[in-house]
Amino acid sequence: MIYLMIQSKGLNWDVGLLSSPRYDAWCGVAHGCTRKLGMKICGFLQKNNSLEERSRIVSSFKERAAKNLLSCDNTGGDVHFRRTETDFSNLFARDLLPAKNGEEPTMQFLLEIVEILTNYVRKTFDRSTKVLDFHHPHQLLEGMEGFNLELSDQPESLEQILVDCRDTLKYGVRTGHPRFFNQLSTGLDIVGLAGEWLTSTANTNMFTYEIAPVFVLMEQLTLKKMREIIGWPDGEGDGIFSPGGAISNMYSVMIARYKFFPEVKTKGMTAAPRLVLFTSEHVSLNTVSSHYSIKKASAALGFGTENLILLNTDKRGRVIPADLEAKVIEAKQKGYVPMFVNATAGTTVYGAFDPINEIADICEKYNMWLHVDGAWGGGLLMSRKHRHKLNGVERANSVTWNPHKMMGVPLQCSAVLVRERGLLTGCNSMCAGYLFQPDKQYDITYDTGDKAIQCGRHVDIFKFWLMWKAKGTVGFEQHIDKCLDLSAYLYDKIKNREGFEMVFDGEPQHTNVCFWYTPPSLRSLPDGDERRERLHKVMTNQSVYKLFAMMMESGTTMVGYQPQGNKVNFFRMVISNPAATRSDIDFLIEEIERLGHDL
Amino acid sequence: MIYLMIQSKGLNWDVGLLSSPRYDAWCGVAHGCTRKLGMKICGFLQKNNSLEERSRIVSSFKERAAKNLLSCDNTGGDVHFRRTETDFSNLFARDLLPAKNGEEPTMQFLLEIVEILTNYVRKTFDRSTKVLDFHHPHQLLEGMEGFNLELSDQPESLEQILVDCRDTLKYGVRTGHPRFFNQLSTGLDIVGLAGEWLTSTANTNMFTYEIAPVFVLMEQLTLKKMREIIGWPDGEGDGIFSPGGAISNMYSVMIARYKFFPEVKTKGMTAAPRLVLFTSEHVSLNTVSSHYSIKKASAALGFGTENLILLNTDKRGRVIPADLEAKVIEAKQKGYVPMFVNATAGTTVYGAFDPINEIADICEKYNMWLHVDGAWGGGLLMSRKHRHKLNGVERANSVTWNPHKMMGVPLQCSAVLVRERGLLTGCNSMCAGYLFQPDKQYDITYDTGDKAIQCGRHVDIFKFWLMWKAKGTVGFEQHIDKCLDLSAYLYDKIKNREGFEMVFDGEPQHTNVCFWYTPPSLRSLPDGDERRERLHKVMTNQSVYKLFAMMMESGTTMVGYQPQGNKVNFFRMVISNPAATRSDIDFLIEEIERLGHDL
Repeated sequence: MIYLMIQSKGLNWDVGLLSSPRYDAWCGVAHGCTRKLGMKICGFLQKNNSLEERSRIVSSFKERAAKNLLSCDNTGGDVHFRRTETDFSNLFARDLLPAKNGEEPTMQFLLEIVEILTNYVRKTFDRSTKVLDFHHPHQLLEGMEGFNLELSDQPESLEQILVDCRDTLKYGVRTGHPRFFNQLSTGLDIVGLAGEWLTSTANTNMFTYEIAPVFVLMEQLTLKKMREIIGWPDGEGDGIFSPGGAISNMYSVMIARYKFFPEVKTKGMTAAPRLVLFTSEHVSLNTVSSHYSIKKASAALGFGTENLILLNTDKRGRVIPADLEAKVIEAKQKGYVPMFVNATAGTTVYGAFDPINEIADICEKYNMWLHVDGAWGGGLLMSRKHRHKLNGVERANSVTWNPHKMMGVPLQCSAVLVRERGLLTGCNSMCAGYLFQPDKQYDITYDTGDKAIQCGRHVDIFKFWLMWKAKGTVGFEQHIDKCLDLSAYLYDKIKNREGFEMVFDGEPQHTNVCFWYTPPSLRSLPDGDERRERLHKVMTNQSVYKLFAMMMESGTTMVGYQPQGNKVNFFRMVISNPAATRSDIDFLIEEIERLGHDL
Repeated sequence: MIYLMIQSKGLNWDVGLLSSPRYDAWCGVAHGCTRKLGMKICGFLQKNNSLEERSRIVSSFKERAAKNLLSCDNTGGDVHFRRTETDFSNLFARDLLPAKNGEEPTMQFLLEIVEILTNYVRKTFDRSTKVLDFHHPHQLLEGMEGFNLELSDQPESLEQILVDCRDTLKYGVRTGHPRFFNQLSTGLDIVGLAGEWLTSTANTNMFTYEIAPVFVLMEQLTLKKMREIIGWPDGEGDGIFSPGGAISNMYSVMIARYKFFPEVKTKGMTAAPRLVLFTSEHVSLNTVSSHYSIKKASAALGFGTENLILLNTDKRGRVIPADLEAKVIEAKQKGYVPMFVNATAGTTVYGAFDPINEIADICEKYNMWLHVDGAWGGGLLMSRKHRHKLNGVERANSVTWNPHKMMGVPLQCSAVLVRERGLLTGCNSMCAGYLFQPDKQYDITYDTGDKAIQCGRHVDIFKFWLMWKAKGTVGFEQHIDKCLDLSAYLYDKIKNREGFEMVFDGEPQHTNVCFWYTPPSLRSLPDGDERRERLHKVMTNQSVYKLFAMMMESGTTMVGYQPQGNKVNFFRMVISNPAATRSDIDFLIEEIERLGHDL
């Protein structure tokens, strides 16, 4: 039994139970179709139909009801993709599939969800909407106008579930908004989104070919393509998608250890000499939002963070190769074994690219594993104009590359690529391959479970594969070139602008543009110690923080901030959002000036 | 400009460009609405309208076209949720949002995707469809009727993208099909699916409150509820959602190490004595599909797999506590330090629950960390009837619990829960808290980045939270009780059935039902060595493997198989699928007998 309710511009027409459809009910359906057109059709029906014809129309409607198809379109007022709505207040999760007769409510429920989501998508790209509607934790916890986060013992109606979905989006952050610049992952790619919806619907995992045949092959082909782009001959090598850059980097350390000291797998770290790792000071010291994943890996994998040696950088945040060599020699003199060097291609804060070729020379000289963390900068490999910033990446033993950052793929999508085949399996396989004769009917080399530190593994490949199909390699290139153009535009606009000061000199290598903003009240201070000190305080404890807080409260834009080394808090602008344009950059500058004017 | 094409039962009517709509075109739309009814309306229009009225109808249509709303419903033949279709062959990803005028193609594209997905959902629950349409890797790689997995440099049309989506689903596995029993994660929960679609659309990560305010709070409240259900006073403690059970278990080992030897974080494993870990032989030896995550963690975290000591089990696969104590004493005598015991609540193959209370006594006596791996069995805590199987879980120091297994939440959704507050952050935080004075405008204790080994972290909570709202605690309980009832039904049906033999005696503790099937041709063999030996061969190399291969080829059902210890390959039936009924269990038995009859 289906209850039909027509909604139009705030008017609700309660049409009645469809199991006993009336002639008027059909008129309601016609109304639902489009208001004007529907009324017209209704008119015809009332005026021109013979009784026989009327009864045939009712039969037809019954047929429709029996087939449980009641969706319709609408063109009046607010855009809805369906106007004929099911009353969800008496429906519950238990009424959905696999329940008997669950098909109709299931379809109506999913379409209703889709209406909520497509409206959200539309608004995400609408600059007149806010990036976020900020509330403090205690406000959300206390409950906002019927949005109650507490879980209950008894089921809630699907109507409440739909309200909860709307509210969840309402109080969230529009990460795809053209003026959201707060993260390395921004934007909402429509094809990627469609891919993720499909992935959720397929709801399988990457453990074996038998339960994810298509996805496993897509992963294999995509990884090969990525290795070709890195520059490894014929795209040879291995790789896997992992739940994020930190875990991809962790894989690289594990694999390096397995390559040099395979006995650690069985005997533990005590079987190896004291091993040391190297990475830029720019990727490990930062406390707020930088990518300290190598440090996390050192702690987790049993090396100890003290055995991660931080490398000095130049003013632009790039590792100084001579410092690496000096520290390698020093470590060896102490009897330690330098094993692993991470060269960052695109640091989190400055967007710096370490000089890979020079680092590779040192790695070869001292027999160390070279990992390139291109979580953020790897995407530049897709651009003929910018890939030179990763020159030498083909000499790496492993590479982390997160399509979910610079390439705009929805979260999560991160790959670790390994030059030498076999290491990934050797390191992570827990079965004695020589004892075990697999007896599956297909080629089990396609199974991926033995390569992973996970057992089940989420399907992260499909959205990326689908986006690649839809955009082509050239589409990714255009996206990346455009983002870098935009950051150059921002840099050019603010480098000599009053009140703005660049954190480091020269055009940024990546889309990261780091700057301070000095409110007018502080600009007259002499450029001596007092001004610096006051600036310091103001920036750390007031200006940047206050400006950021004001941005969040006003909800107009979001840009991250953090300190770096001895530099006090500054704004770090990053552009990975395909929706951003020059007008959004202009807006950002004006908004900072507007909000900061009276500080 | 929009191209209208009406499809009905294989007939395509090319109606024309809507920017120059013709009267016939409107008839086509009427046809699209429902075939019979549409023709009727068409008739009225043709017979009864004055020219003036006709022109008003055309205006109305123009208005619709201008508002870019062309969706309509359909009831004839195959079910489609929209019949009016955009021609996607000349549309590309670059035409979608944020492109100028991208809204209409974006909405049409997403609705088309939704049509594909909702049809897939419908068919998933339809027993007349296959569970899978099996193809070998080389077949899919060579390309199936226009389904080409290779990535190209140039973009492909959205039409091709839609075809790719259909094909991806076509050649995949319907993990939600009522007869898919191959994994611990099965089923397709509609509310969970809706939650995952929303999560993808929100596309944010769990790193900080500022970019995921609602999701961060949902995670916090849900983890607290889970701790209450475990039985920790007032739900106190800590926890985090991780990308799967293996990583949740890895967390538990890391936290235990941090608790007993915090200096390992900075100094590495060499700062600690030789540490040993204990877990059931049933969760580490299996080579095909069991959950060897503790072993993976031992290797990755630098303990070494040799320092993971495997515990003997009884015939039902439960750890023998006396064996644990003996091995602890033995390790101590060797000078090793017993640090961590994993008690499994629901082993992968037998579904065995280790006796937690007895193990907890030993852990307390020898000052060891007790972890309960309830990845598979944790869901039983929701059932008043079955939660006694985890008696003592409240004595654990940490618990892994995967809602994506027994509770039917879409992948990925796994939590690790920790009884002592502060350890998770202490273990994984990379910043010196005493030096760093955070200056955010909200309470930063809600940020989760410091607790995780990841930096970015996928939003896994929302679908689970939404399902809990929709089903209530009682809904999960009903689901779990029903699955266990079904497995009892299966057990009762086959325990004395000719040709079937149970792998272990007695009713299973979980939904795992493990059995051999002996084809008729082998049943006459005497129950001596020869029969056993032949059975062994047949089972390992022929019967089970062949039966499984036949199942996959026929695509009617899927049930996993594996060996365990000295037991040769057997079928492991698991039930977590809410769509499964007794008739599906009956079908499975009959299908095995049908396929196995002539082996």
